[in-house]
Amino acid sequence: MKITILAVGKVSLSFLKDGIEEYKKRMRSYANVTITEVKEEKVSDRPDEAERLRTVEAEGERLLKQIKDGQFVFLLDLHGETMSSEKLAAKIASLGLSGRSDIVFVIGGAYGVSDALRKRADVKLSFSPMTFTHQMVRLLIIEQIYRTFKINRKEPYHW
Amino acid sequence: MKITILAVGKVSLSFLKDGIEEYKKRMRSYANVTITEVKEEKVSDRPDEAERLRTVEAEGERLLKQIKDGQFVFLLDLHGETMSSEKLAAKIASLGLSGRSDIVFVIGGAYGVSDALRKRADVKLSFSPMTFTHQMVRLLIIEQIYRTFKINRKEPYHW
Repeated sequence: MKITILAVGKVSLSFLKDGIEEYKKRMRSYANVTITEVKEEKVSDRPDEAERLRTVEAEGERLLKQIKDGQFVFLLDLHGETMSSEKLAAKIASLGLSGRSDIVFVIGGAYGVSDALRKRADVKLSFSPMTFTHQMVRLLIIEQIYRTFKINRKEPYHW
Repeated sequence: MKITILAVGKVSLSFLKDGIEEYKKRMRSYANVTITEVKEEKVSDRPDEAERLRTVEAEGERLLKQIKDGQFVFLLDLHGETMSSEKLAAKIASLGLSGRSDIVFVIGGAYGVSDALRKRADVKLSFSPMTFTHQMVRLLIIEQIYRTFKINRKEPYHW
């Protein structure tokens, strides 16, 4: 199985970098996991609505260019559906069985995701009605992906 | 405002320790934040239902002993209510205004929370239908507490 995490910008907080590396390492024997980053748009300190929209569109285009035909797209979206870890694990297992083993998880930038990305997404996935930074979401999603592998392999997992 | 995070066991993953310290440091000027840990129950590798239940009860009692009369208790509970960050911020602001400024966030152990704890809780709070380790939940909740302060102070926050 090939898993890509496609995101905007670099992770700047070192504890998040360390955490992401930790789960990437743990998954080495399970799947081929790649993290692809596209350039973050420069924005002013307190961007107005128009600037936010321009940012979302520009970053959305860069993300779309990285998605290949045939890739199954989970888009992280505050307005998406919430799903238990077990349901996500079952979805990933069924994708594998039906030969859709090239999966990409897309995380938008600080101001959200574009409508064009929403159209391309196969599943729009929301963690929580709570807001997390897009940097934190990278850690959360890679941990959940690791968890789905543990669930599908029926292996215990507590930390 | 006095905030206590009350949890079971120590955080063993260093990136989580670093992240929790990061948000604790950032909140120094906002609130008095304390992390209190109670002893984790020893369990076998693949505990059965009865052993899990005993663990939850034993850890639940230790947690309850640490909660003071008059403290407002948010219990992290997979079966609790989900809440947006804005709603949590409004709740904390209104607690402050009504003089309930001693707040405790309780995180159970690996096998969940006891019914006695659920009874003591003022709010049962769920992050997500997804499961996270109780160690990861400590990072998530401290980041959300930091976020509520930023929301209530109308300060921008992106990472």
